[in-house]
Amino acid sequence: MDVTLMSAPPESTPLHTVSILGATGYTGREVLRLLIDHPHLEVIHVTSRRQAGTPVADVHPELFGRTDLVLSAKEPEAAAEADLLVSCLPHGVSGAAVASALAASPELRAVDLSGDFRIPPNEYEQAYGRAHPAPDVASEAIYGLPELFRERIAGARLVANPGCYPTAALLALAPLAKSRLLTGATVDAKSGLSGAGANPGPATHFANANENVTAYAPFAHRHAPEMQTHLAAAGADVPVLFVPHLVPMDRGILASAYAELAATTDADALQKIYRDAYAHEPFLRLVGPDRLPATKAVTGTNFADLAVVPAPGGARALVLCAIDNLVKGAAGQAVQNLNLLAGRPETEGLVHRRVAVEVSP
Amino acid sequence: MDVTLMSAPPESTPLHTVSILGATGYTGREVLRLLIDHPHLEVIHVTSRRQAGTPVADVHPELFGRTDLVLSAKEPEAAAEADLLVSCLPHGVSGAAVASALAASPELRAVDLSGDFRIPPNEYEQAYGRAHPAPDVASEAIYGLPELFRERIAGARLVANPGCYPTAALLALAPLAKSRLLTGATVDAKSGLSGAGANPGPATHFANANENVTAYAPFAHRHAPEMQTHLAAAGADVPVLFVPHLVPMDRGILASAYAELAATTDADALQKIYRDAYAHEPFLRLVGPDRLPATKAVTGTNFADLAVVPAPGGARALVLCAIDNLVKGAAGQAVQNLNLLAGRPETEGLVHRRVAVEVSP
Amino acid sequence: MDVTLMSAPPESTPLHTVSILGATGYTGREVLRLLIDHPHLEVIHVTSRRQAGTPVADVHPELFGRTDLVLSAKEPEAAAEADLLVSCLPHGVSGAAVASALAASPELRAVDLSGDFRIPPNEYEQAYGRAHPAPDVASEAIYGLPELFRERIAGARLVANPGCYPTAALLALAPLAKSRLLTGATVDAKSGLSGAGANPGPATHFANANENVTAYAPFAHRHAPEMQTHLAAAGADVPVLFVPHLVPMDRGILASAYAELAATTDADALQKIYRDAYAHEPFLRLVGPDRLPATKAVTGTNFADLAVVPAPGGARALVLCAIDNLVKGAAGQAVQNLNLLAGRPETEGLVHRRVAVEVSP
Amino acid sequence: MDVTLMSAPPESTPLHTVSILGATGYTGREVLRLLIDHPHLEVIHVTSRRQAGTPVADVHPELFGRTDLVLSAKEPEAAAEADLLVSCLPHGVSGAAVASALAASPELRAVDLSGDFRIPPNEYEQAYGRAHPAPDVASEAIYGLPELFRERIAGARLVANPGCYPTAALLALAPLAKSRLLTGATVDAKSGLSGAGANPGPATHFANANENVTAYAPFAHRHAPEMQTHLAAAGADVPVLFVPHLVPMDRGILASAYAELAATTDADALQKIYRDAYAHEPFLRLVGPDRLPATKAVTGTNFADLAVVPAPGGARALVLCAIDNLVKGAAGQAVQNLNLLAGRPETEGLVHRRVAVEVSP
Repeated sequence: MDVTLMSAPPESTPLHTVSILGATGYTGREVLRLLIDHPHLEVIHVTSRRQAGTPVADVHPELFGRTDLVLSAKEPEAAAEADLLVSCLPHGVSGAAVASALAASPELRAVDLSGDFRIPPNEYEQAYGRAHPAPDVASEAIYGLPELFRERIAGARLVANPGCYPTAALLALAPLAKSRLLTGATVDAKSGLSGAGANPGPATHFANANENVTAYAPFAHRHAPEMQTHLAAAGADVPVLFVPHLVPMDRGILASAYAELAATTDADALQKIYRDAYAHEPFLRLVGPDRLPATKAVTGTNFADLAVVPAPGGARALVLCAIDNLVKGAAGQAVQNLNLLAGRPETEGLVHRRVAVEVSP
Repeated sequence: MDVTLMSAPPESTPLHTVSILGATGYTGREVLRLLIDHPHLEVIHVTSRRQAGTPVADVHPELFGRTDLVLSAKEPEAAAEADLLVSCLPHGVSGAAVASALAASPELRAVDLSGDFRIPPNEYEQAYGRAHPAPDVASEAIYGLPELFRERIAGARLVANPGCYPTAALLALAPLAKSRLLTGATVDAKSGLSGAGANPGPATHFANANENVTAYAPFAHRHAPEMQTHLAAAGADVPVLFVPHLVPMDRGILASAYAELAATTDADALQKIYRDAYAHEPFLRLVGPDRLPATKAVTGTNFADLAVVPAPGGARALVLCAIDNLVKGAAGQAVQNLNLLAGRPETEGLVHRRVAVEVSP
Repeated sequence: MDVTLMSAPPESTPLHTVSILGATGYTGREVLRLLIDHPHLEVIHVTSRRQAGTPVADVHPELFGRTDLVLSAKEPEAAAEADLLVSCLPHGVSGAAVASALAASPELRAVDLSGDFRIPPNEYEQAYGRAHPAPDVASEAIYGLPELFRERIAGARLVANPGCYPTAALLALAPLAKSRLLTGATVDAKSGLSGAGANPGPATHFANANENVTAYAPFAHRHAPEMQTHLAAAGADVPVLFVPHLVPMDRGILASAYAELAATTDADALQKIYRDAYAHEPFLRLVGPDRLPATKAVTGTNFADLAVVPAPGGARALVLCAIDNLVKGAAGQAVQNLNLLAGRPETEGLVHRRVAVEVSP
Repeated sequence: MDVTLMSAPPESTPLHTVSILGATGYTGREVLRLLIDHPHLEVIHVTSRRQAGTPVADVHPELFGRTDLVLSAKEPEAAAEADLLVSCLPHGVSGAAVASALAASPELRAVDLSGDFRIPPNEYEQAYGRAHPAPDVASEAIYGLPELFRERIAGARLVANPGCYPTAALLALAPLAKSRLLTGATVDAKSGLSGAGANPGPATHFANANENVTAYAPFAHRHAPEMQTHLAAAGADVPVLFVPHLVPMDRGILASAYAELAATTDADALQKIYRDAYAHEPFLRLVGPDRLPATKAVTGTNFADLAVVPAPGGARALVLCAIDNLVKGAAGQAVQNLNLLAGRPETEGLVHRRVAVEVSP
């Protein structure tokens, strides 16, 4: 096996500058953590409406001594002075801020981690129960799942970074959609508590969440229409039933996607579909059939681990997909998108060395 | 609300004596813990093949000072001297020991917590990959899920205590089966690590299991035929797909049962089916529609918490069932069965007071 | 070993009625949970200033179907109509409410779980940074650690239920204090997150607390003067250094008390001191020298497990004490105190059967 | 603040090759994980006596697709072909293997992660209860704590990588030792379960370890003489009492070191001692006085976070030190030592960018 150093040596290429709006939450922290190590993207501003004036490392003690950026409330200046904008603001707020920044700076390109630009405004209004904050720019947004929409992302001005659950579900189901095999799916997802965001509440109190598993928003989560919309774009306009669950861990999502198929398909044929779809993807690891995905194997990384298992007795299959919800499900994918926007290698700052995954024939 | 003391005062009724075979594992510990507090069942022997001579409280420090029983290797004597036998031995071993004890003592009645008598010997041989240890007595065994088979249990000589996953899945699906609505089901279950048993291995090492979620034995777990067999007995001879997952907690199972229905059924109709089926069950709590079951709410108890939610767009529903895998999924249910065998109130030793569950009409 | 049924049969004794002020937090929930099973104490009112009108089981899903009490805001009525009052209100608020209730109802007797009556008002004002809410009645309060002050509690009108950390530290150190051996102590305590109370905040967010250990308020916690005051009452007016730590679990405190001794004392002599002090205590288990206390062995129980280990090279020893912070460290101890006030067996409602702890000579 | 890229660009320097003996445990995995990303150290062999022939990524699924090294049993060849040897073998075994490798290859330089070379053979025999495996080469070994012994490590042929607990305790106490202030210490340490090694046993079973805190080997752990020996080398030949505890997390150690001082020393003076000692250390972060170390802030990193707090009423202080036991407490420190042996920047492969820690005057 040849070992290729994917993390190319710093050359004379000028750095791209990045501003992060809303840097006090978990996704903001992770974007910053990843970009501190990135050889070509340089964070120049981090903003917060509530904690302006505070060094960002006081909010995120992991970053103590690694950055001396101070939180500012000046979102327009932060956007205007950067080549690239990352918004980790809450939905509703984020869409308005990003739209305004793009309007002010024609050269700016943005990655929005909120839900505001992931689905069409009419679906958004139903799913989020509010008017869309920026319907005019919404049509410009490209859905930032590089494994499905890489080329369109590279040319975009506005990238809608996917939700954590849709990332796992779409990576699990897209190969079946592309193969015209998928006729329906039930996605049962298990998420760690960081997925609930950094704002504390009863459900995330350790003494309530530990030693507890529960479903929430069954068939009614905002990520369901996001899955359905982009699965249709991938080739299967089929119903998706989605039930998220909280499990007592910090990070990680395991999506167990129960796929209904147009025809009985055996293990080898299923394996081939996934191998063909993902063999060249740097962040997707087809770990089965001998092993099953485990969230712990992807913690802190941008990998998505996958396996597909046919169901006995007919045209169904289970596809398992494990990701770190804060990395491949949010900040890592945002860096992947920033790399595409900046014309950098897609894996830059995300893995330092990477070797080819051995795929048995 | 009237408060009824279900735990009747100790009267002159003679105690029933109980021996526990295989008391060093988690289920043995839990049976013993529950029976120490039971007013009418008295444990007289606890056995272990490997740790004979050791006080049982040295193996289970929770019980220090609460029992001075010493582990013995004398299984035949333990069985012969008791009115009731509980076996927590491993499958294969347990069936042989229980069959031999029943043959030796015609008055003895037994609850077997292993998988040996839960399904017919021919299915057993396929699922467990071994010859059945006692095919002759297998036909006598009654499946010990009191909510479905209460009357037959009371008259049995041998009760096969259900597996933890089947307990949750069957309680979730039986009302739909009885209503002739169920046409198929996919059960996605999430279990704590005590379900893997007390023998340590890599999968249960804290540093591997914590911050980790993974599926195992998808569509291939021994509990799947157990679910299918007894769901058929409940009225629905339909395919059941079963995928268990390990989540980082000690105790608890949440079964998310995706039911396929013969006809679209709305929330009220579903709610009525469950209310009618379970309104008088002392250990089943229909917590929905406003709340969803959570494993933490049943920890350490014999309750099963349930909710049913119709899926949008057609003839499907999600039924959630949360139990403590070591109590309602094992030892508590065994005590429930022992109570039935001994002619005691079914809740004795399991709840001390209980009030009627308010069911809104 | 003789098995004695400590949980005597319900006789014709009239029930004592209890009201719980502030029943929506963790200690309120635990008091209610324990009293639901208590054969002679009957909860008649539960109060909440913010959630009046809500069934208490909606706040605490563990209790669904076990009580139909509804939260009320009428604290004076709740106090006036009960024989016994338990206050789980926050400090400051609790002292005022309890004092007012006692003034209104001369027959009423109260257990206060807040910090308001545990130390003299002058120390209180320094430790809590506020004026004492009821200095007049403070002198009446008896410190509710039954193992040290049983007789005085039985005759009290007002019992100050000890803090969770002082319970563990005082049980660990009192025998050395009584023996006039203790000259100083450093208490390093490790607590689960329920000790921080049910109000959510960043420190208790699962994604911050899990996989994390940290000290807080080193040498500056309010429980330090409480330890010092009552250790002096037990015989050792010596300095106590106290450093609490949060560890990622729900429940439990392990206090590691590093004792400085007046003279080198060997293992046997230390063991004898603890055996003599605690041999007849129903809730104290001297588990060493062969085993060490573990919080898990006491979870959900009112036990305190203890071991004493001499340090090499001189006049020091480690005393370990494990309790469930919500039971022996709060609600269970409150029930112990209620039993003493009501003239009931001290263990009633806390253990159902208990056997003598074998103490090797 | 100037941002300096510490991770210098790959130049024409030839890579140093590294072999890892015993790569199937947690420390072996972490060394490999770190070196995969290291720009100048290249792992060429990984060995295992039991799993030879297995791809190392099958044992450590985190590394799937990142290395195609296969475990080999050929320890002598692995050592002979490398510039640098890292041994993660168990104590006893490791010392013999390293001594033999050094004898066979005069140019080889080694870092041993076992306990075999950390203390003199006579102390070793007492602490480990066995004959020293290689007393002749023991005198050559340099204790690999770079913050104390950097210069000697750079010139060593054999580096004894410190134990996890001694790393935290020595970093906590060395500044006081150097200042001639330390007269004695009690170290109360809290460790995650990965510290117990990858071999499963009852103590590391999730269902036993979760929701549990316990002390072990009080005053009798092998790391105590290691602390005492090297604290003496740092300037304070004083008694150290050590009590380790297991807390329910994967990774991390918090050492709470209770220091006894020659004279009362106030907060400012203590702060100055630590600032002076560690201001230029790339991996030590003095986070106090406003914040306290938290294990979560160092997870996955080679940082040690420190704070010092004077005790009230006299000549004592608490020093807190948080590390990731598998990184700064094992594999990261090994990489730090490998860098020193190879003449590379000490932080190479451990942080990618690092900025100066702001120290308030």
